[in-house]
Amino acid sequence: MEFHVYDTTLRDGAQQEGLNLSVADKLAIARHLDGLGVGFIEGGWPGANPKDTEFFKRAVSELDLEHARLAAFGSTRRAGVRAADDPQVAALRDSGASVVTLVAKSHDRHVELALRTTLEENLAMIRDTVSHLREEGQQVFLDAEHFFDGYRANRDYAVEVLRTAYEAGAEVVALCDTNGGMLPGWVSDVVHDVRETTQGAVGIHCHNDTGCAVANSLAAVEAGAMHVQGCINGYGERTGNADLVSVVANLQLKLGREVLPTGLLGEATRVAHAVAEVTNVPPAGRQPYVGASAFTHKAGLHASAIKVDPDLYQHMDPAGVGNDMRLLVSDMAGRASIELKGRELGYDLSDDRDLVTRVTERVKEAEQRGYTFEAADASFELLLIEEVEGARPSFFEVESWRVISEARGGGPEAASTTEAIVKIHADGVRHVETGEGNGPVNALDQALRAAITRAFPVVADFDLIDFKVRLFDQGHGTDARTRVLIETSDGATSWTTVGVGSNVIEASWEALVDGLTFGLRRHVSKTTPA
Amino acid sequence: MEFHVYDTTLRDGAQQEGLNLSVADKLAIARHLDGLGVGFIEGGWPGANPKDTEFFKRAVSELDLEHARLAAFGSTRRAGVRAADDPQVAALRDSGASVVTLVAKSHDRHVELALRTTLEENLAMIRDTVSHLREEGQQVFLDAEHFFDGYRANRDYAVEVLRTAYEAGAEVVALCDTNGGMLPGWVSDVVHDVRETTQGAVGIHCHNDTGCAVANSLAAVEAGAMHVQGCINGYGERTGNADLVSVVANLQLKLGREVLPTGLLGEATRVAHAVAEVTNVPPAGRQPYVGASAFTHKAGLHASAIKVDPDLYQHMDPAGVGNDMRLLVSDMAGRASIELKGRELGYDLSDDRDLVTRVTERVKEAEQRGYTFEAADASFELLLIEEVEGARPSFFEVESWRVISEARGGGPEAASTTEAIVKIHADGVRHVETGEGNGPVNALDQALRAAITRAFPVVADFDLIDFKVRLFDQGHGTDARTRVLIETSDGATSWTTVGVGSNVIEASWEALVDGLTFGLRRHVSKTTPA
Repeated sequence: MEFHVYDTTLRDGAQQEGLNLSVADKLAIARHLDGLGVGFIEGGWPGANPKDTEFFKRAVSELDLEHARLAAFGSTRRAGVRAADDPQVAALRDSGASVVTLVAKSHDRHVELALRTTLEENLAMIRDTVSHLREEGQQVFLDAEHFFDGYRANRDYAVEVLRTAYEAGAEVVALCDTNGGMLPGWVSDVVHDVRETTQGAVGIHCHNDTGCAVANSLAAVEAGAMHVQGCINGYGERTGNADLVSVVANLQLKLGREVLPTGLLGEATRVAHAVAEVTNVPPAGRQPYVGASAFTHKAGLHASAIKVDPDLYQHMDPAGVGNDMRLLVSDMAGRASIELKGRELGYDLSDDRDLVTRVTERVKEAEQRGYTFEAADASFELLLIEEVEGARPSFFEVESWRVISEARGGGPEAASTTEAIVKIHADGVRHVETGEGNGPVNALDQALRAAITRAFPVVADFDLIDFKVRLFDQGHGTDARTRVLIETSDGATSWTTVGVGSNVIEASWEALVDGLTFGLRRHVSKTTPA
Repeated sequence: MEFHVYDTTLRDGAQQEGLNLSVADKLAIARHLDGLGVGFIEGGWPGANPKDTEFFKRAVSELDLEHARLAAFGSTRRAGVRAADDPQVAALRDSGASVVTLVAKSHDRHVELALRTTLEENLAMIRDTVSHLREEGQQVFLDAEHFFDGYRANRDYAVEVLRTAYEAGAEVVALCDTNGGMLPGWVSDVVHDVRETTQGAVGIHCHNDTGCAVANSLAAVEAGAMHVQGCINGYGERTGNADLVSVVANLQLKLGREVLPTGLLGEATRVAHAVAEVTNVPPAGRQPYVGASAFTHKAGLHASAIKVDPDLYQHMDPAGVGNDMRLLVSDMAGRASIELKGRELGYDLSDDRDLVTRVTERVKEAEQRGYTFEAADASFELLLIEEVEGARPSFFEVESWRVISEARGGGPEAASTTEAIVKIHADGVRHVETGEGNGPVNALDQALRAAITRAFPVVADFDLIDFKVRLFDQGHGTDARTRVLIETSDGATSWTTVGVGSNVIEASWEALVDGLTFGLRRHVSKTTPA
């Protein structure tokens, strides 16, 4: 059989603490996963809850998958009923998915204590349910839950579960390390034993409780598993499921196994981040292969050597997973990094040692006060321009701003109102504008842009597309200092600016002003001295 | 020799993007690491920058380490000078650390292209520097940089580097997977070969670029390495270094190697979170062993089975690493979870099916609007009390609140001022109070507490100790919805409340009011109907 890359983000991944997917979210994620070229997308448990039932209904009509097939997840029949009479099995049969993945107990104590039936009846439940769905024309995979723990407790029974499933027609049995306590050597030994003892394709399903989910998955594949399950971004309950991208990238780039359609691994970074947008779980910068920091260098030591040969300092070409090498401006970086960063932005600083020193000092000083330029390229570029040209670009002068937010009455139904008044001078004209918004920064953004648009109509095309707030010194409660990152777009490109202050509104104001200034510098030919 | 647990958080971990440690931070982290019982703490590179130089100066006099020894990191001598004449080597010698870890090139191309010297001179640099420091009475470890890549490119030279270091007196040579591209099988093979080819103790230093840093470290130890390097919380540049806690927990709990002093692994969760407080990098909930989610269950399926036997659903007793099992209230959880959670809080709900249904419905409905009760136990308890007792606890009635934030002039020097006016009724008396603060929530907190303290003096003992803001629907910019989590303390215990709204101030207000209400319910004997 062909190797299976089997994604369970929509089912097992959705068990993650804080993750909450709507039907629309699940459809969007399925499209992204298809774009990565996975072979199977486990969509959920039809019949178990209204959301998953609706997902399968809509998936069948709305999803036009190019690479992936949809799998419905569910349980073997209940004890003591015929598979054909079990409404849960019927929901799987009628889900519209051509593949059903049945979860079954393979640990004797789980059968007795959690399922509360006999070991024999559990085997019959597997046999009947697999046979029934096969007769109805579906392809059937079996998830052998708690397999590794069950194998330790009662190897004979655990293996008997697999045999029963294969004999009834299951195409793959995935060995699940449900509690996640395994290490690679153990996984390898068990998979070897299972392959010698039974006939049929073996799959692997790992959780990351020992920090070894990726290595455990690889160990299983190296021992002969032909089906690997995981979740995008390593989502999943507790410590998460095996990160599917890391597993697949290691298989392809390290072990030479082509498990995705040609070229699609290069979509990994885009897909991982797009899914993070949908789930609204901030992407982990340190995530292997696709993290924003995965190919990022900040140490001055490295930065100077990278000039010689970048390949000495990266384990693979980041383009292989659609990622990029990045250099950071940071107080740990020396002059070499500032020079390189300047070159990246189009400024050759190599001839002016004093300038590099001044920029380096200002970056260090600002970072001590809480600024960060690692993400805020546009703020760094404004600082650089100020030192190169002798003055900070300026298109308007701020006279004052004020924000008022208020509510009458208590309770969550007492809606608040917020308004902002901004007074600026541009091209010798005073502009006073009021903005209303659903929060202070939104109101301020409205008022400021209304005022500036009167002087510079191009600002009407700018859009604030991301707004991030970070508190530091959090131990101090609401008097913590605040760092705000604002991403502004002109439709074609986007840039990020930073503001810092103990007042979130003040920090936001700084980032808003810099964001508009940077955009105006790009789009307005002459600088208007204020 | 005894097994070495070698922490490099303060040196290699500090290379992480966004991490910025002051000398005081480094001293605090060193004390926490000592509390975990690690054998060695690599403090930094004395002489390379003023911060690290100061750290060693203060560490020698201020740190009173019980378990760990301090190691100074640095480089072999420069090409063409005597070790005794190299100021960088002198800084290591004079650092006050009894252990020096020297980094040396073991990859031939790095010697030629990055170091720009000959292969022979590189060996001489290693020989001379190790000998010199040994003669001066220090213990010397060698970090063989880029060892695994070097071994592939030129095995003979890479091994010659190790032999040279051992012969000159290095006690351990740590094989570094500097670019992080290795997999466990490869690490195992190389360590076996090195052990057969050379005499001397082997160490291992892994990065997580393939998602296998923990497994790679274990593979090396199983192949005979007696020294393992890593960072707390897996800090480090790019994808991070091997997470030292995962490595050590796996060695002790899974492989039966007692590598920490007896009992200290139980400090792991506390230490990992304490260090995260210092670094101000939010702890990763999904982190193996010590993550807040590592032993957390939300699926209704599991929650009901956990009643039968918790050990069926966890790979180890969380107490072994100082962590706890947690049950979450979530819209994926069924009635069983709500019942269990109620019991945890001291309410027996098992007799009242209608009540459980009402609470479950309200939780689901609130979570759809963006609330989360997973972290906000106090808000969940208020909701529960409201359903159990028929009314929400209330100690005061809100008439209105208003916040004004303003600034004159532009630029970062234009400081803003913020004031809040709060009007409430308590015990039939109207209280109007104004609060000033360095931000809107701070001002509101001041005003609200001033007003309530007049009616309930116990509020003076309450302290707002944490304030977290989360934006969702971030794609929409500043009109994103906001979730605020506020942690309030009465000195003895603390509790967390949640507020949601499109206005951060409104959401904060809700969480502030609930936080005070929950505290008053604990401390005030009779409920005053407002």
